Amino acid sequence: MKRWNGWGDDSINVGLPEDGIRFLKEITGEPTPPEKATRDITYEEALRLVGPSRLEGMPGVDTSAEARLWHARGQSLPDWLSLRQGIGLDFPDAVAFPESEEDVRRLLTLAAEKNAVVMIYGGGTSVVGHINRPKGDRAVLVLDLSRMNRLLHFDPVSRLARFQAGVAGPDVERQLAPHGMMLGHFPQSYEYSTLGGWVAARSSGQQSLYYGRIEDQFAGGRVITADAEINLPLHPASAAGPDLRQVLLGSEGRMGVITEVTVRARPIPEAEEFHGVFFPDWKRAEAFARAAVQNRLPLSMMRLSSARETFVTLSLAGHASLIKWMERYLALRGVGEGKCLLIVGFTGTKAHVSHTKKITMHLASKYNGVSLGQKLGSAWKKNRFRGPYMRNSLWEMGWAVDTLETAVPWDKVTDGVSRIEEALQKAAMDEAGERLLVYTHLSHLYGSGSAIYTTYVFRAQATPEKTLQLWKRMKDAASRAIVEMGGTISHQHGVGRDHSPYLPAEKGEVGMKWLESMIKTADPKGLFDTGNLTQR
Amino acid sequence: MKRWNGWGDDSINVGLPEDGIRFLKEITGEPTPPEKATRDITYEEALRLVGPSRLEGMPGVDTSAEARLWHARGQSLPDWLSLRQGIGLDFPDAVAFPESEEDVRRLLTLAAEKNAVVMIYGGGTSVVGHINRPKGDRAVLVLDLSRMNRLLHFDPVSRLARFQAGVAGPDVERQLAPHGMMLGHFPQSYEYSTLGGWVAARSSGQQSLYYGRIEDQFAGGRVITADAEINLPLHPASAAGPDLRQVLLGSEGRMGVITEVTVRARPIPEAEEFHGVFFPDWKRAEAFARAAVQNRLPLSMMRLSSARETFVTLSLAGHASLIKWMERYLALRGVGEGKCLLIVGFTGTKAHVSHTKKITMHLASKYNGVSLGQKLGSAWKKNRFRGPYMRNSLWEMGWAVDTLETAVPWDKVTDGVSRIEEALQKAAMDEAGERLLVYTHLSHLYGSGSAIYTTYVFRAQATPEKTLQLWKRMKDAASRAIVEMGGTISHQHGVGRDHSPYLPAEKGEVGMKWLESMIKTADPKGLFDTGNLTQR
Repeated sequence: MKRWNGWGDDSINVGLPEDGIRFLKEITGEPTPPEKATRDITYEEALRLVGPSRLEGMPGVDTSAEARLWHARGQSLPDWLSLRQGIGLDFPDAVAFPESEEDVRRLLTLAAEKNAVVMIYGGGTSVVGHINRPKGDRAVLVLDLSRMNRLLHFDPVSRLARFQAGVAGPDVERQLAPHGMMLGHFPQSYEYSTLGGWVAARSSGQQSLYYGRIEDQFAGGRVITADAEINLPLHPASAAGPDLRQVLLGSEGRMGVITEVTVRARPIPEAEEFHGVFFPDWKRAEAFARAAVQNRLPLSMMRLSSARETFVTLSLAGHASLIKWMERYLALRGVGEGKCLLIVGFTGTKAHVSHTKKITMHLASKYNGVSLGQKLGSAWKKNRFRGPYMRNSLWEMGWAVDTLETAVPWDKVTDGVSRIEEALQKAAMDEAGERLLVYTHLSHLYGSGSAIYTTYVFRAQATPEKTLQLWKRMKDAASRAIVEMGGTISHQHGVGRDHSPYLPAEKGEVGMKWLESMIKTADPKGLFDTGNLTQR
Repeated sequence: MKRWNGWGDDSINVGLPEDGIRFLKEITGEPTPPEKATRDITYEEALRLVGPSRLEGMPGVDTSAEARLWHARGQSLPDWLSLRQGIGLDFPDAVAFPESEEDVRRLLTLAAEKNAVVMIYGGGTSVVGHINRPKGDRAVLVLDLSRMNRLLHFDPVSRLARFQAGVAGPDVERQLAPHGMMLGHFPQSYEYSTLGGWVAARSSGQQSLYYGRIEDQFAGGRVITADAEINLPLHPASAAGPDLRQVLLGSEGRMGVITEVTVRARPIPEAEEFHGVFFPDWKRAEAFARAAVQNRLPLSMMRLSSARETFVTLSLAGHASLIKWMERYLALRGVGEGKCLLIVGFTGTKAHVSHTKKITMHLASKYNGVSLGQKLGSAWKKNRFRGPYMRNSLWEMGWAVDTLETAVPWDKVTDGVSRIEEALQKAAMDEAGERLLVYTHLSHLYGSGSAIYTTYVFRAQATPEKTLQLWKRMKDAASRAIVEMGGTISHQHGVGRDHSPYLPAEKGEVGMKWLESMIKTADPKGLFDTGNLTQR
């Protein structure tokens, strides 16, 4: 079953190979597992922390300790520390599971009567504090939309599929498949995150190069506000003033409840392949990736790892001997120390895949790229949603891991990668004398720039408070570096509470006023006043 | 030189062949040329209509009758009637030609002191009343941005080009060409309309399938509001809340002066071809076009004419004998009465063009499409910006012509075409017993739907007032038909004043409140209160 205090299903454990652990220790030093430091609290202990509910007796809501604990936190590192070690843990007052728009309306009315804050909950996978209990004295009602998960209508001519917004990734695909169609939105949280959540937080999937970001997939839908409804029409395009879909995209639960989402579906492709291509160094790898996307090669994904991430990937992969032989082969092809791994995906008809593969490999060879075929690509595909599971195993061994991301124009990409990594390392050293394992890849590539995705692993500190403090310093340092280089504070995770202090830097004064006025217009009484986006 | 009361350069005249005129007369009946009905007013007569300026003596502005006449109207049919026959003609009080952001700021301050309304003017090509003198007693200052037309910076790595917003289409391309780059934004107004105007009105070019709509090309920029500045960052993508670029896109001069626009440039393609393909009937033609765009064939444009538009195109083309032979050939290939012409474009490397052409023609053959090669395609390219010139010649002969457009999902396209054409015909018959020449093409195609572009030609009435009244009835009937079928009131022309009554139907109550609050936030004192978008 689903872990209450970690990622994913507790029957799934993604371990680290021995050499991986050895390698990690060499970099960060010997960690101290939780039971030797502060042990994790048990489920029963956590339940005992749940206090009385201020919404006791509200009809049609669940005020049980279980429901409130299960909806207490997302998946950010501070969320983990709260759940694992019980620090600063607080809880919503009640959880409701609406099954229809009528339910939603009724619950909003009840919440308004009690002056409760309504917090909308999709898959609970936020990593930036979207779904934590808001500050302040108002009671908090969580709307868990997981029961609003049906495909309501599919129009095969326009290829438009209308879903209830609470539908999770796999259920989107399961319901489109009988029509021979799919959506193809694959964030790493895919197995749990929901369509409505993707829209509310401007999600982007691993194959957005082919299937588009949620902005491209979101054709229209319906939103229920405190006292009105918003119907977003399904125009393929329009010049009729500002695009209001783009206001709901990224609204993060501040403007109303997204109850229906119509998406642009795609046919299930005939063929798909993922290949691993190595480049001798970052310079050539980055130049190839940029050329590929700027030349509009019709790929379905690119993921370009820095030299360090490539090294880490190979070190943590296990199969040491296999990799040794692989590296011998690459060395003979002039690809050695400092090599960078690109995973590239091809999706479409068989003819399209083979044609695109040909022109892609032809271009790659100009940058001394060497393809190892599908072995590493298939491994990536197999594990594409497994990354977060590693957090569980690392935690057991005494390591904390977090990721952060941004997007910048191409002329800032290479420098940006170093700046972010250095900011994290310096903060860790200054704050706690800790050495990090930090590495980066380009996760989403565009003609004018790229997303930068950085992972950092560090030792849990003697106390959870110290670990949290260390994380805060690193996260703040990296966020400042991102803002200073003119990057966006989030390319795919959203703003929530953790990023909201940095939002004004990119939205500007008028932009923030716009945001506040849009929120005020849709939600004059502050029913959805969670503090996401604007810190209120 | 540029016509003061019609389209384009007065050295360019696009006439109609004899058979074209005969054909037109057969449908609408014999027209009455202006000089026999109410003759057009002369330039001198028009100048005499210009009254005293309420901004006399404002420093750095032009209050001459010439400047005010030249900035009095756009290119809509009512605008034509005003300029050609002097009905309801009114004028702004002054025109300023800022050359820098400092100029803009200074002018905004001066306007605010005089409580004047500031109307931003790009190329003056609006067809929906954007740039007509606003209702009300306030003085009106026109900001003509045509002198802010320079490329300020080009970043070859990110392929981002920062322009002053007043730059006209040809000057955009002229300044990018030395870098081997281009933008490729080709609305029919391309020769006069400006980059800032495209952003403000959400323009779309004839090759948007390849180069993207302005929403895709607009990476960021700067806006000067009454008392602040908005800087839109150049993130390739972002999940940091609502996308504020999408608020400026379509803002139609209500939120501030767009002074800088950074666009995503593309390399000048190695090869480009436009081909004419005929299909036996609309059903198969529409099915092919939809399949082509839904299968994502990497085309650079498609323009699909209805059977009637195809017939008209061939009738007005001249070269009667050439066309007769063409039709004999098509008949042998099973393409006769009711045939539909598709113009399809291929752009990119030579290899890409030949590959795409092959797969496109292969798909077309499945729908019994017959290609006539580049003859008709090249003719389309040659005349792609000439359409509006035809209005001049038609007017001289006593015909008025107007166009309107929308976009709907694919399941509504075919029915939508008929509904719009019938609404126009019925209104013309009911109002004035007139028979129209009306025809339609699909101008911009998307996976989930298509734009519908309808042209209608009718006889000028005995008096300009009657002609205007007839037009109003037809425009209103078509607009209601569009709204009733759930189409957008504009796919590419914007809202202005003419469409603003129909905007609430698609934006909804909350949507309109959002719009008003965004305008109020950016422009609290109503400096830009022209009545575009919201009717105030």
